[in-house]
Amino acid sequence: MKSDIEIAQEAALAPVKEVAAVYGIREDDLELYGKYKAKITDELWDRIKDRPDGKLVLVTAINPTPAGEGKTTVTVGLGEALGRLGKNAMIALREPSLGPCFGIKGGAAGGGYAQVLPMEDLNLHFTGDFHAITSANNLLAALLDNHIQQGNALGIDPRQILWKRCVDMNDRVLRNVVVGLGAKADGMVREDHFVITVASEIMAILCLADDMKDLKDRLSKIIVAYNFAGEPVTAGDLHATGAMAALLKDALKPNLIQTLEHTGALVHGGPFANIAHGCNSVRATKTALKLCDIVVTEAGFGADLGAEKFMDIKCRKAGLKPDVVVLVATVRALKYNGGVPKDQLSEENLEALKRGIVNLEKHMENIQKFGVPVVVALNSFISDTEAEYAYIKRFCEERGCEFALAEVWAKGGEGGVALADKVLNTLENRPTDFHVLYEDKDSLKDKIGAIASEIYGADGVSYSPAALKALKRIEEMGFGNLPVCMAKTQYSLSDDQTKLGRPSGFTINVRDAYVCAGAGFVVALTGSIMTMPGLPKKPAAEGIDVDGEGKITGLF
Amino acid sequence: MKSDIEIAQEAALAPVKEVAAVYGIREDDLELYGKYKAKITDELWDRIKDRPDGKLVLVTAINPTPAGEGKTTVTVGLGEALGRLGKNAMIALREPSLGPCFGIKGGAAGGGYAQVLPMEDLNLHFTGDFHAITSANNLLAALLDNHIQQGNALGIDPRQILWKRCVDMNDRVLRNVVVGLGAKADGMVREDHFVITVASEIMAILCLADDMKDLKDRLSKIIVAYNFAGEPVTAGDLHATGAMAALLKDALKPNLIQTLEHTGALVHGGPFANIAHGCNSVRATKTALKLCDIVVTEAGFGADLGAEKFMDIKCRKAGLKPDVVVLVATVRALKYNGGVPKDQLSEENLEALKRGIVNLEKHMENIQKFGVPVVVALNSFISDTEAEYAYIKRFCEERGCEFALAEVWAKGGEGGVALADKVLNTLENRPTDFHVLYEDKDSLKDKIGAIASEIYGADGVSYSPAALKALKRIEEMGFGNLPVCMAKTQYSLSDDQTKLGRPSGFTINVRDAYVCAGAGFVVALTGSIMTMPGLPKKPAAEGIDVDGEGKITGLF
Repeated sequence: MKSDIEIAQEAALAPVKEVAAVYGIREDDLELYGKYKAKITDELWDRIKDRPDGKLVLVTAINPTPAGEGKTTVTVGLGEALGRLGKNAMIALREPSLGPCFGIKGGAAGGGYAQVLPMEDLNLHFTGDFHAITSANNLLAALLDNHIQQGNALGIDPRQILWKRCVDMNDRVLRNVVVGLGAKADGMVREDHFVITVASEIMAILCLADDMKDLKDRLSKIIVAYNFAGEPVTAGDLHATGAMAALLKDALKPNLIQTLEHTGALVHGGPFANIAHGCNSVRATKTALKLCDIVVTEAGFGADLGAEKFMDIKCRKAGLKPDVVVLVATVRALKYNGGVPKDQLSEENLEALKRGIVNLEKHMENIQKFGVPVVVALNSFISDTEAEYAYIKRFCEERGCEFALAEVWAKGGEGGVALADKVLNTLENRPTDFHVLYEDKDSLKDKIGAIASEIYGADGVSYSPAALKALKRIEEMGFGNLPVCMAKTQYSLSDDQTKLGRPSGFTINVRDAYVCAGAGFVVALTGSIMTMPGLPKKPAAEGIDVDGEGKITGLF
Repeated sequence: MKSDIEIAQEAALAPVKEVAAVYGIREDDLELYGKYKAKITDELWDRIKDRPDGKLVLVTAINPTPAGEGKTTVTVGLGEALGRLGKNAMIALREPSLGPCFGIKGGAAGGGYAQVLPMEDLNLHFTGDFHAITSANNLLAALLDNHIQQGNALGIDPRQILWKRCVDMNDRVLRNVVVGLGAKADGMVREDHFVITVASEIMAILCLADDMKDLKDRLSKIIVAYNFAGEPVTAGDLHATGAMAALLKDALKPNLIQTLEHTGALVHGGPFANIAHGCNSVRATKTALKLCDIVVTEAGFGADLGAEKFMDIKCRKAGLKPDVVVLVATVRALKYNGGVPKDQLSEENLEALKRGIVNLEKHMENIQKFGVPVVVALNSFISDTEAEYAYIKRFCEERGCEFALAEVWAKGGEGGVALADKVLNTLENRPTDFHVLYEDKDSLKDKIGAIASEIYGADGVSYSPAALKALKRIEEMGFGNLPVCMAKTQYSLSDDQTKLGRPSGFTINVRDAYVCAGAGFVVALTGSIMTMPGLPKKPAAEGIDVDGEGKITGLF
């Protein structure tokens, strides 16, 4: 069997300008990065912004195994299949992070015969967007510490600095550090922390900003610290906005690439869904909606994280409305949710499947709470059995839910036609009645409570004293009207990653909270969720190589 | 008067494929990054590598003021002027670092009417080479700490870790840090340090590598730490080579851009000359030498740093041979070397000029020690006076040295014709007798001693006990045959930045040394030279902005 990268490297790509032409994008609307990657200019947006929107399909998933359940793969295959059925469809994805690429999960360009290309470029530096975000993030940090060093006119309290440095790398030793050691010229000693770039508020800002003006406005509002009087100090106060925006000038523009079957894919932005809001950029999604009839996009991890945030943060703030949700499940992940260890997921196990399928059931119910019709897509794996398929199909149909097998990994767009049929049927016959889960005016605790009880199925929420204090302060500062972005493990509906399936009788433990005033949401940290992953015992990086001709191997 | 960025933004650029065509580079030899930037493919090198070399002109300078003396400006203007005189000339420069761009010095794209374009792109992310180096550097660091965390099979001694993390930013608080604080899962606590990206050994490796095979060979040899038995542990031992090389795959390819007058410029790599070897990549220089008759390149800071390393490291290792050296001086820097404070350099001061011109004299003598003819180029500033010009001209002529005024900042290539004439005359009439300063077989102390006495004019070298121990260990490990890369202040021929002019009666103080086994040189640290700069009281970043249309202001 061929590996993902082998399939990708054998593919004959179309010049990106030809891919663009299919959607009416002219060559001078593109800034080429080689033959097969391009950024979309602002001029295109100005020309198309008054067009009517196409339909919006969100691909989300049940709670995943550590390897992921193939949301991107299904998104790609579905987009291609819609094209095969004569629809003008486009895909809108997030960009991969180098952290998981070198860690345990591998890249994020889809898989098998449902991939976006060029796969190596996308998984490594792509068009440099994440590097631009890292630079802007760390410029702000350097300006902050330099301000303190040079006299601290703003009276920044070194004990109350919120802004963290970042790297696009899984690097656990940077979670908690002390900086500024040495002599007077080496800065003020203080505790500091690094997050992975996808957790930077700048990543969220880039993904939520309408345009350069909005980007700058949001950047200036970032709260970096409190002063000795307890008042917030912002990036604007540090005169950091303009230079950060200059670093982000190109990163703000969506990237156009293609699938194996030459379907257009806008790949832009990439916040993780467990520690951030988990959706690709508003700019890319809106652009795609103006360029075609149906846009297929995805949100990270399970629907409890990515889909909830897609609805309650991205759609709420950007005025978007999903028309249908495709809920991806795999036999493997259902068995995993039924308690099967990772190394035994390839064996048929109907008992475990029955125990785990309640996870799918809960996500189906959850999405319906947002008023959006659901199609369940079972992403097929070669180890699946007919008996397992039959059981899941019946389970969905008994609950009045559309179901389709997605064989896109093995067959590309052709393997997604059954799913595309169900999606088209749903779009035609079941209009969305989309609404968000809570109101802006609800208190932050009510918002967290609504997510915990309605989506996670918790009995309630317990708050640490620090979290209570933080939430109170955030509301006093006037940010109580913002939506909430939960930071929670992706492996469970609860905040305990060992509670698989459809847990009950649990509470969600909020241990801290902070406001991302630029991004426009309040982050509630639950359980032990971390904003800087670590590398595993055998990092994927050890298997990656490049030969004398520049051919890369070992990316997956 | 127009600012550099205003001049740059008003320029009409030629498509880079047209610039390339002048040198016989075909469109399919280019990987375009937008219309005006491109990387050169490996296929071009394979096609041209057996051609004869053109002539190589090195532009260097006297000891500079903190604002720099316009080496890049002269390099650009000279390249353009050679074209005006009917020569097929090309420029080979280093890429700018974000650190000084946001700090005190501004960008590094030349100035006035002698600039390389696109100026904003070059000064910000360009084609992402530095970000690739940062990523590769920090991946190695993460793999190293993860190895310790996951059982430390190689027995790495956390007290003897040499590899440092890096950021492309002036960030003084990262000079000395403690990492790994927190719980068991957060890694092993140890002291760590960040350097600026241009000081990373990977930057040097990229600039000295012949091709991907050589790059990988060098990466694998990097010594990251010693184990508990005192033996070196390499990047190869950590299985980091392949993934690092994959990150550097595109960064290894030279970048082609153009000057204001459409002269081709290969801009590639960017080690600082005070803390690293200070030259653009061997690959770019060699490519340029195959593509045209005359290549004009530069090396960082004063000739005591950049030119010495160009000769003794780059030329020695790459088999290159400079045909003429252009030594850039400014009236301002000569007066600065004569003791005039920074804020009074615009006033005529012949006495100070006389005191300071001995600095120029010493650099002239130094370059002649390498057997290479010298042309002095006085980079004109509007505050210069005729009396000052006349004095310097006479000084040079009395010493039998070619002299020309370079008015390239104000007039572009036209302002460099007088200089180009002198350079052509020298190339025609004075053949180079290039030789390096010391032999490979000399001891490390003899090499350091030769540089200190012959180039710096020191009475001798004093070594700290740590430096003596380090040099002994490096020779015992078999690296005594490598050239030496001095880390020294750029403001003085000595290691004390307050000793301007032509100091005498001083010793060079080597406080530590380490081997860059991948790059292939031994670094000797003198004085208080730091590998991570800090930001000034008012960072340049505060003046940078970008408007709603994406137009950047405040870069200089």
